[in-house]
Amino acid sequence: MAKERHITLPAGFTAAGVRCGIKASGREDLTILAAGRLVAAAVLTTRNQVTGAPVQWCRRVLPRGYGRMRAIVVNSGNSNVCTGPAGLRDAEEMAARTAALLGTRAANVLVASTGVIGHRLPMEKVRAGIDAAFAALGTGNDDLAVRGMMTTDTVPKSAVATGRIGGTSFTVAGIAKGVGMIAPSMATMISLITTDLAIAPAALHRVLRAAAERTFHAVTVDSDTSTSDTLAAFASGACGNAPLTSGSEGLKRFAAAAESVCGSLARQLAADGEGATKLIEVTVSGARNVADARAAAMAIANSPLFKCAVNGGDPNWGRIAAAAGKSAAMVLQDRLTVKIGGVTLMSRGLPRKFDLGRVTAHLAGKEIMVVCDLGIGKGRYTALTCDLSREYVTINADYHT
Amino acid sequence: MAKERHITLPAGFTAAGVRCGIKASGREDLTILAAGRLVAAAVLTTRNQVTGAPVQWCRRVLPRGYGRMRAIVVNSGNSNVCTGPAGLRDAEEMAARTAALLGTRAANVLVASTGVIGHRLPMEKVRAGIDAAFAALGTGNDDLAVRGMMTTDTVPKSAVATGRIGGTSFTVAGIAKGVGMIAPSMATMISLITTDLAIAPAALHRVLRAAAERTFHAVTVDSDTSTSDTLAAFASGACGNAPLTSGSEGLKRFAAAAESVCGSLARQLAADGEGATKLIEVTVSGARNVADARAAAMAIANSPLFKCAVNGGDPNWGRIAAAAGKSAAMVLQDRLTVKIGGVTLMSRGLPRKFDLGRVTAHLAGKEIMVVCDLGIGKGRYTALTCDLSREYVTINADYHT
Repeated sequence: MAKERHITLPAGFTAAGVRCGIKASGREDLTILAAGRLVAAAVLTTRNQVTGAPVQWCRRVLPRGYGRMRAIVVNSGNSNVCTGPAGLRDAEEMAARTAALLGTRAANVLVASTGVIGHRLPMEKVRAGIDAAFAALGTGNDDLAVRGMMTTDTVPKSAVATGRIGGTSFTVAGIAKGVGMIAPSMATMISLITTDLAIAPAALHRVLRAAAERTFHAVTVDSDTSTSDTLAAFASGACGNAPLTSGSEGLKRFAAAAESVCGSLARQLAADGEGATKLIEVTVSGARNVADARAAAMAIANSPLFKCAVNGGDPNWGRIAAAAGKSAAMVLQDRLTVKIGGVTLMSRGLPRKFDLGRVTAHLAGKEIMVVCDLGIGKGRYTALTCDLSREYVTINADYHT
Repeated sequence: MAKERHITLPAGFTAAGVRCGIKASGREDLTILAAGRLVAAAVLTTRNQVTGAPVQWCRRVLPRGYGRMRAIVVNSGNSNVCTGPAGLRDAEEMAARTAALLGTRAANVLVASTGVIGHRLPMEKVRAGIDAAFAALGTGNDDLAVRGMMTTDTVPKSAVATGRIGGTSFTVAGIAKGVGMIAPSMATMISLITTDLAIAPAALHRVLRAAAERTFHAVTVDSDTSTSDTLAAFASGACGNAPLTSGSEGLKRFAAAAESVCGSLARQLAADGEGATKLIEVTVSGARNVADARAAAMAIANSPLFKCAVNGGDPNWGRIAAAAGKSAAMVLQDRLTVKIGGVTLMSRGLPRKFDLGRVTAHLAGKEIMVVCDLGIGKGRYTALTCDLSREYVTINADYHT
């Protein structure tokens, strides 16, 4: 397990994850992902108006969201949010120390932190962690690198896709951590993407934004938007291709692979939502337009009543219809159709006789498919979420500041 | 307990609540509130685009939301939602049967239903229930009348206020049921208000809307908007005053009493939110305007992470700041102040040293006061909610359709 490769599979990257004592649990809590030289990089950060110092740092060094970067240093257990100018100095010091070890400038290193809000980082431990992670950088630590970003995640999350552009084979890899305070008004929690292709930074940023729209932005665990969300992508250029630019056929191939990686990570995030026992895919079709489809899908995916019903294995289509009806999407009651697991429970606004055994069996599974057709137009969107369990409450009632 | 007076305290009204077998539990499930003659009435119904047949009936007989009415018949255990034209005929039959017994027309009787979605009403039982409730109408059944509207409520909710206009003493009374699928994009679940004053129907409607804005609309239990919410008010005129009209001093006195009754019922609804162990009052001050204050207060009050923290007694001000930051309200991080129980935990965006014992003691109580000052303008709004407990999940996972 510890030797599984993913984030360093694209040539040109090394990674490490170490334990430096930020987490009380003593688990991995500091990760470095480094390229062998300055490489194309793009970053998306939270849309929350309250932001952590690391997010502010990323925006300072990449004001347009893309450029050339050497590495990212990530810690878990403490998000360095609401820590004022001192916290920003801490984030800068993390970048500077990592940069010095790599032989580059602080402005070439991104920073991300996740964990509790409102506490200064234990910088003595962080410094030792950075030194240890730098010493451990390699291609055999990918699993530890993911673990160094995890908070309430129960499983590490990674994805790999490959493709060909002309005669060149390429790889795209990603790792991500969730799993609470997740809502789609931003990129995601923390996710890192690597590829061995050469890509123009602006093109990389554009691909990242488009991929996030249909993947990370489609995830909602609890409708709460984190202050620390960061999605960063690095393109090493190890493939030796001419840098891909916007509009090229090659960029489209890369975009497909990147969306596949982001999509897989997004599903893994939703499936591992805090307390989740099931992944729920909510597709709204037949909406007036995509914005309406997204509004209705998100209203359903954020409905605590619907999520509790799935937790209890209850085919409660009434809560699905009610959630769509309260959304900003145009809903005409007598055109509504609701399906669970491919079985129609309601159509044209009325309940239908259905095979309860089939629906109950579907709801007993790990992946629940809900379709709500508004019967108005062609807009379609799929949101990803998880059920709401007693365990979610336990995790978040007992997680003390 | 069964002899407590509230909804019939204003002269001119009788009420009854009976058991007719709609609820599997065998508890009270049908209520009639009747005036002795046609009286001024106003009604607010859900803003959900999916509506129950009773809501459609109320809109048909009171297209402007006010007029003269004789009674309202309410059942619990089945909401008569998504039941198509047949369901609408059932709602009409409920009004017609009640009206026939009272010697008036169906169009003079409002209907409200609450409970499971998507099932036809058991009309044989409903008919027998209406007959029994009519036979029992009086002023000694107020408690049974509230119970006939209850679903997952654990306590009956009522409020009474009195006032004087010139030499005339008047009374305003209200009853309400909650307690899940409650979000403020509407009136509330079901609430009935009576007064013995004479009031012009349009003026009554205006007062009801204004009172709801600061009371029922400030309540959110789970961000889910019911398809059946109905708030109805009746003014018997038994005081013998000249009907109050808009802009009069008398109407202002009535409005103050009505807001007091609605405010009390709203607090009772929030405190009895599904699975709730605590009432939470979230005040946002210093916002750019009232709309911003409301957006931020609702974002905090709907944050599952914040609500779980309160459940766990955790003074997690970071989640309060993060919830404000994700809202549509303008938030400037370095002006944010957060207080719990009067103790400042964060100011100007930074954590403050505070008396943990004092805050913990406050969080151990039944009424939690949270203040988030945005430090920008004068906008202020108070939202009411409850904590999110394992019991909420249990109630909604195990409530089967």
